[in-house]
Amino acid sequence: MDEVSVLAPATVANVVCGFDCLGFALGEPFDEMIVRRIDEPVVRIVNVDDFGLPTEPERNVAGVALQAFIEAARLDHGFEIVSNKQIMPGSGIGSSAASACGAVVAANALTGERFTKLELVEIAMAGEALASGSRHADNLAPCIYGGFTLVRSTEPLDIVEIDFPPLFATVIHPQIEIKTSEARAMLPKDVPLKSAIRNWSNLGSLVAALAKGDYDLIARSLEDTIVEPVRKSLIPKFDEVKSAALFAGALGGGISGSGPSIFMLSDNEATSQTVATEMARVFEGTNMNFNVHVSKIADSGVRVHQ
Amino acid sequence: MDEVSVLAPATVANVVCGFDCLGFALGEPFDEMIVRRIDEPVVRIVNVDDFGLPTEPERNVAGVALQAFIEAARLDHGFEIVSNKQIMPGSGIGSSAASACGAVVAANALTGERFTKLELVEIAMAGEALASGSRHADNLAPCIYGGFTLVRSTEPLDIVEIDFPPLFATVIHPQIEIKTSEARAMLPKDVPLKSAIRNWSNLGSLVAALAKGDYDLIARSLEDTIVEPVRKSLIPKFDEVKSAALFAGALGGGISGSGPSIFMLSDNEATSQTVATEMARVFEGTNMNFNVHVSKIADSGVRVHQ
Repeated sequence: MDEVSVLAPATVANVVCGFDCLGFALGEPFDEMIVRRIDEPVVRIVNVDDFGLPTEPERNVAGVALQAFIEAARLDHGFEIVSNKQIMPGSGIGSSAASACGAVVAANALTGERFTKLELVEIAMAGEALASGSRHADNLAPCIYGGFTLVRSTEPLDIVEIDFPPLFATVIHPQIEIKTSEARAMLPKDVPLKSAIRNWSNLGSLVAALAKGDYDLIARSLEDTIVEPVRKSLIPKFDEVKSAALFAGALGGGISGSGPSIFMLSDNEATSQTVATEMARVFEGTNMNFNVHVSKIADSGVRVHQ
Repeated sequence: MDEVSVLAPATVANVVCGFDCLGFALGEPFDEMIVRRIDEPVVRIVNVDDFGLPTEPERNVAGVALQAFIEAARLDHGFEIVSNKQIMPGSGIGSSAASACGAVVAANALTGERFTKLELVEIAMAGEALASGSRHADNLAPCIYGGFTLVRSTEPLDIVEIDFPPLFATVIHPQIEIKTSEARAMLPKDVPLKSAIRNWSNLGSLVAALAKGDYDLIARSLEDTIVEPVRKSLIPKFDEVKSAALFAGALGGGISGSGPSIFMLSDNEATSQTVATEMARVFEGTNMNFNVHVSKIADSGVRVHQ
């Protein structure tokens, strides 16, 4: 086998009270990528989408991830990637993670599946470091494992798969730019112990509620009094969008990653569609362009086709 | 039915990364209590143990809890309690919670089971407020529900039962006095966001690990970098006791409640006994008196016998 095509899903990180640890995989959108084995020990990138991403491997997220893969596997050959991205860079739903994960999962399939999922996340972190300037796995973990994942620790990397019931996500992406560095600078350095306790009580409860399939408890646990209150100012009409979604029957939600996308969870597909309509209605009254995605939370991460 | 006897278990609160929310019920020790219906609308208390607790109902935890019960149920009669406590007051394993919970569960059994477990915890909180000066449910919840419980919120009260695999607890109680007010004053008002994230990642992971029965992950998740580092100075030889327990095969553990008891969890009974021996060895070299309790984590809370 010298060529595979992969589909790498968009992902939501910073799931409300699960800031910096909890994420999940969307059913769509996803990036398409064809990866071929080539004899030279280099990475070649061909972009067939319109995003104008760099083709020099050391400046390209998928390229850096593949170079890390080649090094980790001590390969004497290289890869060519034909990348057809669907996940808009800068949308806050794991566009760079999809690039990195798609590339390493494809490379692993082409070289005898020598790495575990955990090791693939570790390797893909090189790509994320290029994209965001920091080593983190919040989007990589759900992109590779699928479903809900919790990154307990990055050093050493420890990823926990969280059981969950059928859930539907509505994501709205207002096309404004949020600089990750700016979103990061807004975070408080210290938080009141009381707020921290409230947050970990909610996260513990959310994990239990997901495992039990208790939708009411999921809804009650989806509360963030630490990050959302400061970051929501980066997203015009955040409160209105969220209220409209909750009024339409969503269980809860918040900022996806560091924004600008907003995600909401519902316990059935019809509600997630109504939620989409109501969220969109808020942005229709503005001059912002936006995309809406509705999908079931995906059980599987990157999918490989030969 | 005019009389019941109840067994109210000791409980561990502040379970490592579950500070202020996660607790569990011990198989032993437990308080024994006989509660009788009496015609006068008052509470009478008879202590048959040696702890010298007050018998005026308004100064007695069980008494205050029963008065709250009488009020909540709008009863025109009262109760007499014969209390034989086995859980030493001030030990940090929920002695006051056992008094309050035993009393209200008994009263509920005597008056037609009109309240749910959640409502009984709410009523028993009056007793805890007398004992500790603050309304909290960390020990009450596992005492009434049994097993592992997470108090997501106290206003409104929201209690989550956490699934868990067979686990054995070793508790050592060095007989020193720790004032709850002093232990509380040591808590930082603010914590670094980084530490808070680490803690909630561990708690989310612990809840998932308990539900999955993944003992290795339970062990990795039992980490507290916020409260234990400051409070452990209240307990002589804390680090030595913990190291001895881990070396003997315990999964992890920490300060029970606000101390002075130290608890450790093991995945089998033989290990929990060895852990007890090794923890005791550390205190044997001191002039402190101590008790050791070894038991399986109890599936049920307060038990009623007619």
